[in-house]
Amino acid sequence: MINEFELIEKLLAYAPEKTGRSDSPLRVPAGDDACLLNQIKNPVVTTDTQRHGVHFKLDWQTPEEIGQKAVTSTLSDLAASYAMPISLFVNLAVPPSIKDSTLEKIYKGMKKALVHYSCTLGGGNVSEGRDLSLDLFAIGEGRDDIFPVRSSATAGYGVYSTGPLGLAASGLDALKRGDVSFTRLVSCFKNPYARFDAAEILAENRVMCVIDISDGLAGDAGHIAKASGVSIKLVVPPGQIDPDMSAYCEKYGLIPENMLLAGGEDYELLFACAPETFDRVKKRLPDTFQVGECLPFCGQHITGLPADVASFSHGTGS
Amino acid sequence: MINEFELIEKLLAYAPEKTGRSDSPLRVPAGDDACLLNQIKNPVVTTDTQRHGVHFKLDWQTPEEIGQKAVTSTLSDLAASYAMPISLFVNLAVPPSIKDSTLEKIYKGMKKALVHYSCTLGGGNVSEGRDLSLDLFAIGEGRDDIFPVRSSATAGYGVYSTGPLGLAASGLDALKRGDVSFTRLVSCFKNPYARFDAAEILAENRVMCVIDISDGLAGDAGHIAKASGVSIKLVVPPGQIDPDMSAYCEKYGLIPENMLLAGGEDYELLFACAPETFDRVKKRLPDTFQVGECLPFCGQHITGLPADVASFSHGTGS
Repeated sequence: MINEFELIEKLLAYAPEKTGRSDSPLRVPAGDDACLLNQIKNPVVTTDTQRHGVHFKLDWQTPEEIGQKAVTSTLSDLAASYAMPISLFVNLAVPPSIKDSTLEKIYKGMKKALVHYSCTLGGGNVSEGRDLSLDLFAIGEGRDDIFPVRSSATAGYGVYSTGPLGLAASGLDALKRGDVSFTRLVSCFKNPYARFDAAEILAENRVMCVIDISDGLAGDAGHIAKASGVSIKLVVPPGQIDPDMSAYCEKYGLIPENMLLAGGEDYELLFACAPETFDRVKKRLPDTFQVGECLPFCGQHITGLPADVASFSHGTGS
Repeated sequence: MINEFELIEKLLAYAPEKTGRSDSPLRVPAGDDACLLNQIKNPVVTTDTQRHGVHFKLDWQTPEEIGQKAVTSTLSDLAASYAMPISLFVNLAVPPSIKDSTLEKIYKGMKKALVHYSCTLGGGNVSEGRDLSLDLFAIGEGRDDIFPVRSSATAGYGVYSTGPLGLAASGLDALKRGDVSFTRLVSCFKNPYARFDAAEILAENRVMCVIDISDGLAGDAGHIAKASGVSIKLVVPPGQIDPDMSAYCEKYGLIPENMLLAGGEDYELLFACAPETFDRVKKRLPDTFQVGECLPFCGQHITGLPADVASFSHGTGS
């Protein structure tokens, strides 16, 4: 039986209670039944689950990498909502077979990401479970002027990504094959970034329709199309296949276009806006590129997909 | 493989987006990457985990009861922080063996509790896992004037409970034995209440030290004693043994005083204050009674415990 209270105390010992900001958002930090934060004008809240064997594996990643990525993928949803992180809460389920030292390494990785994104740890729970898993909840401060939603795309809009896609999925594929030669791709899977930098530029340009690409381009574009009542025709533009990914796919007889369309966990932002808005965005974010266009609903939310592409599903793929 | 998106949509279909209040706290409800709430002046946040086999069992409780209690036990932490519920978020882990209809019943039970406590459902995740479990995260609006903490007890204070203790643990014991004759005790285990009513009176009387009794009196008094740097001498007052619990303990040769000291999950509030403050509270909350007193730290946080009493641990007991 794990000692829940000892483990929580260890977790909190790793917790950044203060960020680089002069004014800590934690008025009464974790340790009581609840945590008291400073006033939040536009509270933005998101939840995420990371489960061993589904979203990560100790065979694929170090415990530090697991902790760091769990935090990053959760905060990525705040980025996609134009919100700045305030505080993260995490519930850990821990099988008896997991050593305390492994848990401490997960905490270290979480702390690294929290510090990087100037986010506090507000609290959490540790309890025994058969699956090692992290349930994360993050609160951020949204903008006064704009809150992007998936439902705001309209026919005539272009659909764009803030950066290269399919790299994380290629890296995961390499990990599964035990091929250690594609270190950059593997690193894209292990160490994603939450695109707060890109979010700021999209917000400044009044882009109203944003989602982070966690499920894969086809799947996440589908969420936008469904919520907005449009069809999105996906087109992989020539020249947007990453050279490393291209080399990887060639080695294993895979189709790089499909990897780009279906591969998840890149945590780039997918957004829809008028082409003239995109032109302004592109000047500030040169890596941004078009992946499709919004059309009046034709009976199918996503078109232009090869028959064999299905949305990449949670790391273990299908 | 479960269909995560379908299940989330079903969950949201059960979600109260509006409470009885005229002004819904959800500006952009669940369905996007994150949820946008109205401004929160004093954000109070708590997390909880409820796992099958640890905190509940489908053999003991109906799915509705499981959902309802999971929400109640989470909101109880808000009550203990003098905060009113705003929004709840829930991550569900679901084994393939669990039927969709069972999940829907859990959702129904959650909704019942959410409506009862005027709390919205802000969002959540559903994913596959080996253990059926709920990770819950609640946000509330704290008071402007007071936020109670466990660390504010001091020598000379009395320690008090807002209501009877040990009933839920007796009910759980009856469930485990398959004894169906003690329906009131079983109901105390299955259908606890979060004591927002008592919290309001404690807050009005400026009681600064509060915790909800989830782990059991001895365990939760220990949290107060440790955080406050005092010793708490627990005394079971004669006349505070519930007659049903007394009858139950007599039937099975159990010691009712021990049940009161160690049994958890009653979700009454445990509080410490000056005796004259308690006199004022008692007039408004007649069921409140003294369970101990705070003394200068003597080297041991809790005294007065029978040797065989250990803190009740999460439903399955020890």
